[in-house]
Amino acid sequence: MSLLVVGSVAFDDLETPFGRREHALGGSATYFSLSASRFHPVRMVAVVGEDFGPEQMRVFSGRPIDLGGLSKVKGLSFHWKGAYGYDLNEAKTLATDLNVFADFKPDLPEAYRESQYLFLGNIDPVLQLDVVRQMAKRPRWIALDTMNYWIRGARPALEAVLKEVDILLVNDAEVRELTHEHSLLKAYRKIQALGPRILVVKRGEYGMALFTPEGHFAAPAYPLENVFDPTGAGDTFAGGFLGYLAWIERTDVTALKHASLVGSVMASFTVEQFSTERLEQITQDEVRNRLALFSDMIRVEDL
Amino acid sequence: MSLLVVGSVAFDDLETPFGRREHALGGSATYFSLSASRFHPVRMVAVVGEDFGPEQMRVFSGRPIDLGGLSKVKGLSFHWKGAYGYDLNEAKTLATDLNVFADFKPDLPEAYRESQYLFLGNIDPVLQLDVVRQMAKRPRWIALDTMNYWIRGARPALEAVLKEVDILLVNDAEVRELTHEHSLLKAYRKIQALGPRILVVKRGEYGMALFTPEGHFAAPAYPLENVFDPTGAGDTFAGGFLGYLAWIERTDVTALKHASLVGSVMASFTVEQFSTERLEQITQDEVRNRLALFSDMIRVEDL
Repeated sequence: MSLLVVGSVAFDDLETPFGRREHALGGSATYFSLSASRFHPVRMVAVVGEDFGPEQMRVFSGRPIDLGGLSKVKGLSFHWKGAYGYDLNEAKTLATDLNVFADFKPDLPEAYRESQYLFLGNIDPVLQLDVVRQMAKRPRWIALDTMNYWIRGARPALEAVLKEVDILLVNDAEVRELTHEHSLLKAYRKIQALGPRILVVKRGEYGMALFTPEGHFAAPAYPLENVFDPTGAGDTFAGGFLGYLAWIERTDVTALKHASLVGSVMASFTVEQFSTERLEQITQDEVRNRLALFSDMIRVEDL
Repeated sequence: MSLLVVGSVAFDDLETPFGRREHALGGSATYFSLSASRFHPVRMVAVVGEDFGPEQMRVFSGRPIDLGGLSKVKGLSFHWKGAYGYDLNEAKTLATDLNVFADFKPDLPEAYRESQYLFLGNIDPVLQLDVVRQMAKRPRWIALDTMNYWIRGARPALEAVLKEVDILLVNDAEVRELTHEHSLLKAYRKIQALGPRILVVKRGEYGMALFTPEGHFAAPAYPLENVFDPTGAGDTFAGGFLGYLAWIERTDVTALKHASLVGSVMASFTVEQFSTERLEQITQDEVRNRLALFSDMIRVEDL
């Protein structure tokens, strides 16, 4: 198998009720690849500026993350500044400086074009579609994340790329904005009509819901003593989800449920510290232990 | 076993994005007893005014609901007017007319004082404590619901009654306001120090979480095609939860998990129509079928 992510690598200024960080490593491709690479090698396509130095590069080293598609160009890296209120469920964007990202045109290295798993991080759907068109053959699974900004401002392009997508990963508000349906069951049918066969709804501290043609599943979030910074939780989830699926090489609903638990557990680490601080340091034992506790927690004997 | 509820019987004016109802039957004791009586006989202590006629009384008839503690006095019944926004997760109170409820002093019929399960609906904690003191012997389980109004305005009385309580059922915002802790794991330890051994956190469309000394559990909400009116969902949950426990006569963590599923399924019916319309009409088969689907939905094979 082979797993490709196209997304952002960024610097974030973060403010939560529990503290702040400036110029911290962020971006969808960053969180995704740090999470997915626990389970399967990852190929990354992204762009950074001259401010992205050896210190940042070190975060990716010693991991099965292929940076052959990470281009460094003149200028500054993508920068996002966000703040969270007490409930931590929604980020308020204070600043977005696209910088080198404004001219980002993903150009896939030849070898990447045969990747069997593709994650399209939350970027302009025009670019997402361009990536899909560069693939030499249809990946086994294409997953996509997007946001209200594109749903409102680039719907035709988004609908064009969604036709090619198998798995849509979004939050409650996004799926409702995309489908104009309050009920997620109804929303899922509209999503299917747009293309994706599978819908994953990310719900922050409330966990996630999975919709497949074979049935519906939902799981709470892994309960934590401390949540410092929810930034990157969704991309970390996506990384665990797809990394696990690429590793297990199964596409059945049980594998999708397990992938959901893996994604949730990975996200639980990310939010325990700012930026990628916790995600960088976890051990395989910590992942395994938390997965076992989580499985126990949601298990119910038959009624 | 014997199950006693003390709470409100009210008329509600309801407005949701999907419609409105005026002068609809409501109140915590109403939803609780309609739900719990599916599983176990219920004794109700509440007060209504002269506007509460045979039409409303008929809702309770033909069910194992003992109305010997429902007093009818001069004046108008408790009236609540509320509106919900598109996400349906939080009610905005537009009007609260206590009416006959202003002078409500629960006076338990002699036979009720030996009830083994007691649910204290969301009323003044001074009255909740008074009810506990009227019990001839300590019930096996006392459960309590409250709200931010009492947490802010009547904390000493609330803390006094919490000392007597086994199970606290509240929502996320309430448990955080009560404990000043964002993490529910930390909040639960503070709740335990206040008295309740068990904490149930109600999360609306996101389901519920259960905290016990033997471990933590969480379940999503039962997924629905249509949600019209979330009013009464929490009390319906409490009714299913305690009604099931009174019926099964078990206090172990598996029984508590099952009670959580039963409560969730009962609440899923309530929100499908306005007021008690759906809850009044469900059949035992519908309850059983939905429970089976729900159990399947959250089941995951071992990873």
